[in-house]
Amino acid sequence: MAQIKPRTLSGFMELLPARQVQFDRMVDILRKSYALYGFTPLDTPAVEAAEVLLAKGGGETEKQIYRFQKGDTDLALRFDLTVPLAKYVALHQNELTFPFRRFQIAKVYRGERAQKGRYREFYQADIDVIGDGALDIINEAEIPAIIYKTFTALGLHRFKIRLNNRKVLNGLFAVLGLEAQAGDVMRTIDKLEKIGSDKVKAILVDDFAVPAEAADSLLALLSADDPMAALAPFRGKNELFDQGVAELETVVKYLSAFGVPADHFMVDLTIARGLDYYTGTVYETVMLDHPEVGSICSGGRYDNLAEYYTDKQLPGVGISIGLTRLFSVLEAQGYLNEQLNTAPADVLILPMTEDLSPAISFATALREAGVRAQLHCEQKKFKQKLTYANKLSIPFAAFLGEDEIQQGKVTVKDLTTGQQQALAPEEAVALVRDTLAARAVGSPIQEPQG
Amino acid sequence: MAQIKPRTLSGFMELLPARQVQFDRMVDILRKSYALYGFTPLDTPAVEAAEVLLAKGGGETEKQIYRFQKGDTDLALRFDLTVPLAKYVALHQNELTFPFRRFQIAKVYRGERAQKGRYREFYQADIDVIGDGALDIINEAEIPAIIYKTFTALGLHRFKIRLNNRKVLNGLFAVLGLEAQAGDVMRTIDKLEKIGSDKVKAILVDDFAVPAEAADSLLALLSADDPMAALAPFRGKNELFDQGVAELETVVKYLSAFGVPADHFMVDLTIARGLDYYTGTVYETVMLDHPEVGSICSGGRYDNLAEYYTDKQLPGVGISIGLTRLFSVLEAQGYLNEQLNTAPADVLILPMTEDLSPAISFATALREAGVRAQLHCEQKKFKQKLTYANKLSIPFAAFLGEDEIQQGKVTVKDLTTGQQQALAPEEAVALVRDTLAARAVGSPIQEPQG
Repeated sequence: MAQIKPRTLSGFMELLPARQVQFDRMVDILRKSYALYGFTPLDTPAVEAAEVLLAKGGGETEKQIYRFQKGDTDLALRFDLTVPLAKYVALHQNELTFPFRRFQIAKVYRGERAQKGRYREFYQADIDVIGDGALDIINEAEIPAIIYKTFTALGLHRFKIRLNNRKVLNGLFAVLGLEAQAGDVMRTIDKLEKIGSDKVKAILVDDFAVPAEAADSLLALLSADDPMAALAPFRGKNELFDQGVAELETVVKYLSAFGVPADHFMVDLTIARGLDYYTGTVYETVMLDHPEVGSICSGGRYDNLAEYYTDKQLPGVGISIGLTRLFSVLEAQGYLNEQLNTAPADVLILPMTEDLSPAISFATALREAGVRAQLHCEQKKFKQKLTYANKLSIPFAAFLGEDEIQQGKVTVKDLTTGQQQALAPEEAVALVRDTLAARAVGSPIQEPQG
Repeated sequence: MAQIKPRTLSGFMELLPARQVQFDRMVDILRKSYALYGFTPLDTPAVEAAEVLLAKGGGETEKQIYRFQKGDTDLALRFDLTVPLAKYVALHQNELTFPFRRFQIAKVYRGERAQKGRYREFYQADIDVIGDGALDIINEAEIPAIIYKTFTALGLHRFKIRLNNRKVLNGLFAVLGLEAQAGDVMRTIDKLEKIGSDKVKAILVDDFAVPAEAADSLLALLSADDPMAALAPFRGKNELFDQGVAELETVVKYLSAFGVPADHFMVDLTIARGLDYYTGTVYETVMLDHPEVGSICSGGRYDNLAEYYTDKQLPGVGISIGLTRLFSVLEAQGYLNEQLNTAPADVLILPMTEDLSPAISFATALREAGVRAQLHCEQKKFKQKLTYANKLSIPFAAFLGEDEIQQGKVTVKDLTTGQQQALAPEEAVALVRDTLAARAVGSPIQEPQG
């Protein structure tokens, strides 16, 4: 038969079984963590009408989007979870109750040039709180607090959430007379960490006609050790600025109240998060030991979630984890806890008699106790079956031979310790369950000690 | 601003929050049930190279597939989970351990004409066991046993699994001299339930040159009350037939051993499940009270999972639940258990003081006990906040006013009973947790009593 070479597209993550279990374990923790904060799960189509997804249009989005025709319909794959959320909320606004808190963990698609760490299909894990006309500032502090708790639950501790407020930046540009160049200035200061103060100043002054004095003021402020103190002299000159500083102070105060330790967040006035969407607090999150990865969790406050679809004002605040990329970084850096069970089953049962009833009964008893059991009834040698269990890291094997059956017992072998004993089925179930529970400690991420 | 009308494409299911929770609850039970039987979760890309997905090619598939170009690449959305599994196993055959047992619950895409109960994006929930060269017949009995347990766990009881064996059918056609017309005969007898014996006979005889006597034999057999008994006279005439009958007997015997009650399965010789893929046992599952829905769970045994990609022989057996369609049927027929909690949170906390610390502490205590808590800090009247809780069916509200805080208490109101009491925070947590646990009984599906 003519064959096609099997392959998976470049930029599309496809994991081997043990890795998949590790990935799913992270997703489970995210789901549980988000749910504990009162977010409801949402699922929207991966395919939408292209005109709906591209309502905002323009820029990189349009170039990267997977867009295609089916019959007369112009379709596209979603490139984020925010636009589908905007559509959902606009479409169902009369059926939803506000504030509307939803999480969504799902795949999005971007036809970027494939390169290391860039995916064309990847999971985003988003939470958003959407208000109806208004939304209290406290949400802008709760969202990063949830992220703090979520990362901690995953086992990630060495990270820092960086905060800014777009009103501070925009107000500052007004004070410095840079409103006309605001976009260019923002894009330039975004490069501060990469290219340094001197080069940023040169670009600001030479390319964007920023007065040298204004550039100096701005750069001094952006690199201040205590940004809140450095902002103080500018107060009282611009209403938007003052409001932004007040909001930043409030968010910082509440973040502490929400239990985020002081060393896990900082104000960073260089953070802008794009030009035209966020209007208040913005966030980025960096891994302390891997700043080169960039932000692993970003978001912020916006005033109009769905202005392209509805006149209803829907302010909100949200944050997104790029989960596929984060997972690939964790994997590459050896952060995945390899001690946790990744086997497809907890017990491999080897029936050694024609009559399978005792083996099936034992499997049923295990499953009723929540223990994952697999019967191995293939025509293979005993040793091959044990090799199978070892290859898959199945923690226990159970043998049911004539002797065991006659005595109403089952022989359980702990494949980690090599210990083996004949027990009554209910004792065997308890042993396996308790041993597994004792070993199932630790979080999916384990940071190197250092 | 120029606006685009928000819409969701026809044939793409998008649920409101409470329904989504009900859907997710079913998915959770499926995942847990499949995992208990030693299946490992798998996730493959929704987009694949078109030539890979269409390796088999031809027929309805090619017409329905969403296929598109991106750059130079010819892409397509997967239309089932079996072809991606075949690709995965062929591609990773040296890294997998066989028998390979995987489950996958994911969306697939078919650009069918949209009509009631037909979806263009829908979830399939598949399990498959793939052997390396050989696979024991016992798997053909275990798979429907898993389906029995899974449906039962969901709360669905009034269903029947129908079994057949392709070797029986193919052997029978050989005995009756109908090998040349096998495909046509199979398609015709598939209509038996719809159009009746007389019309089927007419088509067989008139259109496909089946001798009247052979047609009578066949029809008598297919409508026999006891199919196994009716098969007996044909034994000893054809090897394939005899093998099929023996397999069917074995599967029936093991099904009982696996605990599937006799009234939940039956041999049905009319079931064929397509022409060119299945080679042994085949399954369909019908809802007793809604036969018009057709099969809600189908599958069977195949000899060559991945013959389009590899020479390696990979026999397997699998079954698939069309989850989106099943859910829409359950919803339409009133089978969803509306008593189970669908709220985004278990407790809505209403802080009534400037200082939020006591409210945040209480929220933290609830979450640590696994109780989902939401702080409601919007600038709204007390009554509006209670209305919010009621609209979302949040089961408890907690008030923290000056009095409560001074006394170190929290007032908890059970919004189901209207009962309200001031309790120490740890007592309040216990009350909420225990009450929720007591109410969280019952399965997601509740069949009408009848």
